[in-house]
Amino acid sequence: MPKYHDQLDVVLRALADPTRRAVVERLAKSPAVVSELAAPFSMALPSLMQHLRVLEDAGVVTSQKHGRVRTVSLRPGALDVLHLWLGEQRTPAEHQADRLGLHLTRTTPKGT
Amino acid sequence: MPKYHDQLDVVLRALADPTRRAVVERLAKSPAVVSELAAPFSMALPSLMQHLRVLEDAGVVTSQKHGRVRTVSLRPGALDVLHLWLGEQRTPAEHQADRLGLHLTRTTPKGT
Repeated sequence: MPKYHDQLDVVLRALADPTRRAVVERLAKSPAVVSELAAPFSMALPSLMQHLRVLEDAGVVTSQKHGRVRTVSLRPGALDVLHLWLGEQRTPAEHQADRLGLHLTRTTPKGT
Repeated sequence: MPKYHDQLDVVLRALADPTRRAVVERLAKSPAVVSELAAPFSMALPSLMQHLRVLEDAGVVTSQKHGRVRTVSLRPGALDVLHLWLGEQRTPAEHQADRLGLHLTRTTPKGT
């Protein structure tokens, strides 16, 4: 699956930066305009725009321009490729723990 | 949490390479000696050793030398930091889907 691995490469590289992760964390709550995204960072707007471009190229975010305002959103399912890969790396011990967790979920009465 | 984010940086960077991910995929099944890990790759051993060093520095794998044989293992909980961060990025719509999934798990009779 070369395409799957290419996508993993770009998503992982895009997320391997604290500013870009902070942007993703903010967008997980709701879409935001660029000025809102820039507010928490003490960096020039062109630097932030460059980070946004990396995230957009990786397919993690999308953006739409209405007049002079650009709104950025987390792309639905953007992190699925990472969830999928991580899920596949569960060790035999972790699979056993999962089964125990599911058993407890099924046998524990609701509301406890 | 600067330490948490530093760790995320190094783990994400370590995984943003298809050879290193292939090594992690192999080690998720069981520990392996270096020659076993090298077998599927058409690369010189020193290059593979360099990839292993990146994974070890990131805390993703550990290794032990017995005589002339080095055995490499996935460090237990090595990917937890990534699971944790990904879990935090669930959007409101995904949280709703989670609750539905849990409800179905609880209300669907066992074995169906």
